[in-house]
Amino acid sequence: MQAAQIIHIEAPATVANMVCGFDILGFAVKAPYDEMNIRFRDEPGILIVNEDEYNLPTDPEKNVAGAALLAMMQELDPATGFELRIRKHIKPGSGVGSSAASSAGAVVAANRLLGNRFSREDLVRFAMNGEKVASGVKHADNIAPCIYGGITLIRSIHPLDIITITPPPLHVTIVHPQIEVRTADARSILKKQVQLKDAIRQWGNIGGLVAGLLKQDYELISRSLEDVLIEPVRSILIPGFDEVKRRSKAAGALGGGISGSGPSVFMLSKDEPTAQLVAEEMKAIYRSLGLDHHVYMTTIKADPL
Amino acid sequence: MQAAQIIHIEAPATVANMVCGFDILGFAVKAPYDEMNIRFRDEPGILIVNEDEYNLPTDPEKNVAGAALLAMMQELDPATGFELRIRKHIKPGSGVGSSAASSAGAVVAANRLLGNRFSREDLVRFAMNGEKVASGVKHADNIAPCIYGGITLIRSIHPLDIITITPPPLHVTIVHPQIEVRTADARSILKKQVQLKDAIRQWGNIGGLVAGLLKQDYELISRSLEDVLIEPVRSILIPGFDEVKRRSKAAGALGGGISGSGPSVFMLSKDEPTAQLVAEEMKAIYRSLGLDHHVYMTTIKADPL
Repeated sequence: MQAAQIIHIEAPATVANMVCGFDILGFAVKAPYDEMNIRFRDEPGILIVNEDEYNLPTDPEKNVAGAALLAMMQELDPATGFELRIRKHIKPGSGVGSSAASSAGAVVAANRLLGNRFSREDLVRFAMNGEKVASGVKHADNIAPCIYGGITLIRSIHPLDIITITPPPLHVTIVHPQIEVRTADARSILKKQVQLKDAIRQWGNIGGLVAGLLKQDYELISRSLEDVLIEPVRSILIPGFDEVKRRSKAAGALGGGISGSGPSVFMLSKDEPTAQLVAEEMKAIYRSLGLDHHVYMTTIKADPL
Repeated sequence: MQAAQIIHIEAPATVANMVCGFDILGFAVKAPYDEMNIRFRDEPGILIVNEDEYNLPTDPEKNVAGAALLAMMQELDPATGFELRIRKHIKPGSGVGSSAASSAGAVVAANRLLGNRFSREDLVRFAMNGEKVASGVKHADNIAPCIYGGITLIRSIHPLDIITITPPPLHVTIVHPQIEVRTADARSILKKQVQLKDAIRQWGNIGGLVAGLLKQDYELISRSLEDVLIEPVRSILIPGFDEVKRRSKAAGALGGGISGSGPSVFMLSKDEPTAQLVAEEMKAIYRSLGLDHHVYMTTIKADPL
């Protein structure tokens, strides 16, 4: 055991539920990201040290990174112990995969320490235990893009089947209005049944979006960034949503929607000047609503974690 | 007007509702195809001459090719007249786009005679009037692949948005069991509402199928050829369906499903020897069921009509 080795990792924020791709399409961004350091410790078990302001639990079973590591450790020598130092920069509850960054970052870092003994699919499986702690649901919507990079398509969850889609250059503007949208609430307001005709329209857009990304056809991407099922229901939880969408598109954005289950909203643009105009619109809208907010400008992170 | 010019066209059979891509994905095949000859006539209106065994109507309003031409003629000089001779090889009611071949073939041929004055989208629009005569619904599921070639994605019908997907080489085996499945019946047994979780599984497969085709990833294509919504309901109308699917896949087929609304069933294979094995399985199954049947072996037709 190389007790002295320290692995440092930067686990990125992610956008899940990419417009029409509810539960199946997501992507990683270059910033913000969480920083983590992991090393072996001499005694078994996990020691978590939080080096940020968020007062997250240090009990490994209650900490998302801890829960992910515990799942991994079930397949390791019982004597293995890890010390994990976490410095979060992705605000929990903002809807850009804060818990996924912790869970995925922890297991990717630990796996590197272990000489990459586990496959990427194994790591997704472990990290999903962190999501269970965070939201009650073992979903891979943020975990998959965080670990694989680029845009990921979760074709199937049982069995796990993750496909990486390399997009053309895309600039991402994200606004985080400082309100709370609980994932459980965002999920409970969705209807369990949908009209077949709406489902068909949605899958036309999914096919169009995947084709547009792979064919690097920005016009097709833009036309396909339409969600007729989830957004009309969930967007009522996000003040200013319609205005953000309308004014971002007027400023030249290709389109966008709710990031994860909100409250963050993202917009995609072809170039940085457009992304900057979108950022200005977002700020103006939330200033006029009198809502605290934070705006990020970034790009899609193409490389895996 | 070049009264003497005759345009000859071979309008291909098409497979609509490509497994998970109900109402949005279809493809054209090299055979069978209908033959048509069109020329201007000296008097206004349409003269239809059927040169086959099917006794289809010759009244332009009741003939699918005639209905498509009539839609086109509303945008032409009222004095224009066409003589259309049709020799159908695609059996009506077999589920491989027989009516679409007539409708699309007629307007594409007429457009060539007119010096290609209309766009492909216009032609789809005209031809959809033929589908209305055939099935009561103005759908583009077969029209789009017939006119555009390759695999077509109908992202949206209002407004019409058709995307061509160029697939890797694919061999197609189609069995047509000689039973009648009325499109109206096949449509009426579908539920108007579906479970959101099933819709999500379906759109994972659609994303996977489009990605697999564009990335030329046969394994991904195969995994994505799954329909959890329509096939379980409609396949009960087709004797031997489950057996065809099971034995075709055991013989090496990538997968397949109901062609259009049936009764034909298609299977895709990577190479011709596999497609041949699939054909043998299909024949054996319908022989043992004592059902008359016809098996076609062909490939996807990449070029437009």
